[in-house]
Amino acid sequence: MYTLEELSDFLGIAFSGKAGRRISGLASLSAAGPDQLAFLASRKYEEQLLSTTAGAVIVAPALADRCPVDHLIAEDPYLCFARVSGLFSKAPEPAPGIHPAATVDNAADVHSSASIAANAVIEAGVVIAADVVIGANVYIGHGCRIGEGSRIYPNAVLNHGVTVGKYCTIHSQAVLGADGFGFAPGPAGWEKIHQLGGVTLGDRVEIGACSTVDRGAIDDTVVEDGAIIDNLVQIAHNCRIGKNTAIAGCAGLAGSTIIGANCTLAGGVGVVGHVEICDNVHVTGMTMVTKSITEPGSYSSGTPMTATRDWKRNAVRFAQLDSIQRRLTRLEKQRDE
Amino acid sequence: MYTLEELSDFLGIAFSGKAGRRISGLASLSAAGPDQLAFLASRKYEEQLLSTTAGAVIVAPALADRCPVDHLIAEDPYLCFARVSGLFSKAPEPAPGIHPAATVDNAADVHSSASIAANAVIEAGVVIAADVVIGANVYIGHGCRIGEGSRIYPNAVLNHGVTVGKYCTIHSQAVLGADGFGFAPGPAGWEKIHQLGGVTLGDRVEIGACSTVDRGAIDDTVVEDGAIIDNLVQIAHNCRIGKNTAIAGCAGLAGSTIIGANCTLAGGVGVVGHVEICDNVHVTGMTMVTKSITEPGSYSSGTPMTATRDWKRNAVRFAQLDSIQRRLTRLEKQRDE
Amino acid sequence: MYTLEELSDFLGIAFSGKAGRRISGLASLSAAGPDQLAFLASRKYEEQLLSTTAGAVIVAPALADRCPVDHLIAEDPYLCFARVSGLFSKAPEPAPGIHPAATVDNAADVHSSASIAANAVIEAGVVIAADVVIGANVYIGHGCRIGEGSRIYPNAVLNHGVTVGKYCTIHSQAVLGADGFGFAPGPAGWEKIHQLGGVTLGDRVEIGACSTVDRGAIDDTVVEDGAIIDNLVQIAHNCRIGKNTAIAGCAGLAGSTIIGANCTLAGGVGVVGHVEICDNVHVTGMTMVTKSITEPGSYSSGTPMTATRDWKRNAVRFAQLDSIQRRLTRLEKQRDE
Repeated sequence: MYTLEELSDFLGIAFSGKAGRRISGLASLSAAGPDQLAFLASRKYEEQLLSTTAGAVIVAPALADRCPVDHLIAEDPYLCFARVSGLFSKAPEPAPGIHPAATVDNAADVHSSASIAANAVIEAGVVIAADVVIGANVYIGHGCRIGEGSRIYPNAVLNHGVTVGKYCTIHSQAVLGADGFGFAPGPAGWEKIHQLGGVTLGDRVEIGACSTVDRGAIDDTVVEDGAIIDNLVQIAHNCRIGKNTAIAGCAGLAGSTIIGANCTLAGGVGVVGHVEICDNVHVTGMTMVTKSITEPGSYSSGTPMTATRDWKRNAVRFAQLDSIQRRLTRLEKQRDE
Repeated sequence: MYTLEELSDFLGIAFSGKAGRRISGLASLSAAGPDQLAFLASRKYEEQLLSTTAGAVIVAPALADRCPVDHLIAEDPYLCFARVSGLFSKAPEPAPGIHPAATVDNAADVHSSASIAANAVIEAGVVIAADVVIGANVYIGHGCRIGEGSRIYPNAVLNHGVTVGKYCTIHSQAVLGADGFGFAPGPAGWEKIHQLGGVTLGDRVEIGACSTVDRGAIDDTVVEDGAIIDNLVQIAHNCRIGKNTAIAGCAGLAGSTIIGANCTLAGGVGVVGHVEICDNVHVTGMTMVTKSITEPGSYSSGTPMTATRDWKRNAVRFAQLDSIQRRLTRLEKQRDE
Repeated sequence: MYTLEELSDFLGIAFSGKAGRRISGLASLSAAGPDQLAFLASRKYEEQLLSTTAGAVIVAPALADRCPVDHLIAEDPYLCFARVSGLFSKAPEPAPGIHPAATVDNAADVHSSASIAANAVIEAGVVIAADVVIGANVYIGHGCRIGEGSRIYPNAVLNHGVTVGKYCTIHSQAVLGADGFGFAPGPAGWEKIHQLGGVTLGDRVEIGACSTVDRGAIDDTVVEDGAIIDNLVQIAHNCRIGKNTAIAGCAGLAGSTIIGANCTLAGGVGVVGHVEICDNVHVTGMTMVTKSITEPGSYSSGTPMTATRDWKRNAVRFAQLDSIQRRLTRLEKQRDE
């Protein structure tokens, strides 16, 4: 429970209305009640503002006059909404200390302010910094280093030699440091190339649930500061993900692919191995990236959804496209003659 | 081991043949032996019926006369096959009680008929109803509620505030209640929007292995009664999956997407955020759903598989499609003049 | 640390240079220092050979003369590199024995040379052969059999009735033997078809992190000897993956699909159910395989990535393809008349 004035102070922005108004939670503009805070980030929802029953709304200066209720005035309402969201989180905050059911090797170095939950297994040589939270059933392999304030959710796995920076979040079932998929064809089948590198995450990296970041073949696989990765994403060995790049769910990157800074890969994007994507690239959902991208901008592939009946007809024609093009060229030539 | 008569009673359908015939298991029509039960659901396999060596077959009334062996007569043989399948399951049924190696908080409420396996971790405020089975190494976070008869397979994770209805099945490595992927761009990079909602599953919901259902940003992410979700599926924050909808493996739904009742999404389908799919929609495999669907029916996207050599030529032409269309229009105009 | 001569002996190939040269690790040709071993597998990197500062290089006979440093001469340098990679692995090798925090049923048969880590749970009827390594928090269900020398990484799950051959590697969070996705539509919704089969892996199979191999409906799902499967791959019930076939990350196979031997499925490939792919087929990334493949070769689908602006125009035209083709045919007819 915060007053409007407290929220104004916390965000460092002005407010208009009753300083002592008590806000107990967040809600959407259309659903918020008198003790809830909403926000308006897009002109698209301006109409909802006029009829809102929220206790207060975070609005841009240009809309402040039209706001029928108390409000906080923000240059970037969405960002301010993000910043207050943590105040209202009900996520449990585990107490420092090592749960008696955890298995921590004597040769691991665990900061006294860190929290290690039941059944976590921490191997020799691990260094866990201040304020780290290790969830239940987490495995931290030999020689891993977890930076200050990072949180590893239940059942995640960090195999040996993984380095996690400060204030990172690793969600449940994520796997850092499984073997890269490296095999050489031999006379008796595939021969495994032992993966000798590790995984290095910068600071403030987020890795989603059931996502995998494989260890490098020789050097490390790297995710740079501030990169955020959603659920069920595959980052293969020796990829490098640039600073503040965001990768949405179900995307997959093949080996040795380099993604620049401030990129956004939408859901289901696939990137082949050994290509490079420059900074500030956006790739739309389910696009197949088969070559390097050297210019910032938005890139896409795929075909639009239609009724299956129509799709079937058009899909058949796709397989005739080259012939269609050649027939067209022939007609043009005949016209020109 | 059941007699033909016992199966007939269990299914509530008629049989023809030896009442005391003993059936010890299920098999396909072509492989079944004299102590096994098979079924015929499709006219396509009618020929296999004539030569079957099964002990008995579940057949439709129209085919009963042609069945050379004992049979059960069902309006829907496939459904009856599903119903008897549980009789022959060899899946171990854990005994009630809490394994000594489980870690159950004193402030959790576990029904005496529930089974909690080794190394399961149950946090404070959890309510576990009758006949629930919690597998080994499962994590159940603060305040979760698991309804009667639900089963959570080994190593699955339910973070705090997840509600599971009755008779649900959550498979191994599934994650319910990881943070939704919500971030606001700020001057220093992405700022996390704390995810304050939970996850609510109705009754008889199935969530596959390594599938993820994220917690909502403010309100809950919801999967309604009877919805079935296969492996490696991503359900982002604030999605709502309608009653009896089925989603096959490797599909991914972006945030705030609403899927109606009785839909089927085939494998690898991707759905962008903030769209709505009405009831009774079928989406074929690997389709990219980029807009709302308001009419029941079948929808598709993608291109057909061909030899890579041919595909390369046609794929090049795809990138020229707009120009091909315009050249064609020009030719038509010239013809008309 | 190995001498050049020792490596030559280990690989069974000739060397040229200082027999006692000490090699402490592997590196790429361009980065290797004087105590590191590199390799040259492709003419593409020949220039890097001339300026390498590696202690030694594995080279093909044709390039041996041009190598400016000590070298090992191999018909297949890449294969030899794979073979020496294991010598330099720093992956911890767990000692034999059962960790006191493991939970092993009295009716499980664990070989004395096997290593069972903390919090592993081994159920009744399990047979674990010599030199098997079971990682922390792994679950091995009733009646599973793990062959000699196989390794199960932390937090993986094998549900009941899974058979793993010799020298297999199962990575973290993989799930073998979750229920196949089998349901029959009934009047009250989906009715579960209990999955009565198991999963059988041959020898030297690798299953990646967060990959799932479902149990069969009646018979087993099978992965044959030497098949290698990357991360986040879905193998549905009753699939059969042939010998030495490789499946890259994020691929998904629907039920009862049969893949031959020596196939390679690139990342993100989807295969519908009940089709058959013959031996020696390559499928390129993100291809949608909607029918059986009966001829060896390379197969593809999908459209090329372009700037989103261009893509939008062409994608619209895709939905008009059938009409474009018919307009073209009309023009041709008019020309012919």
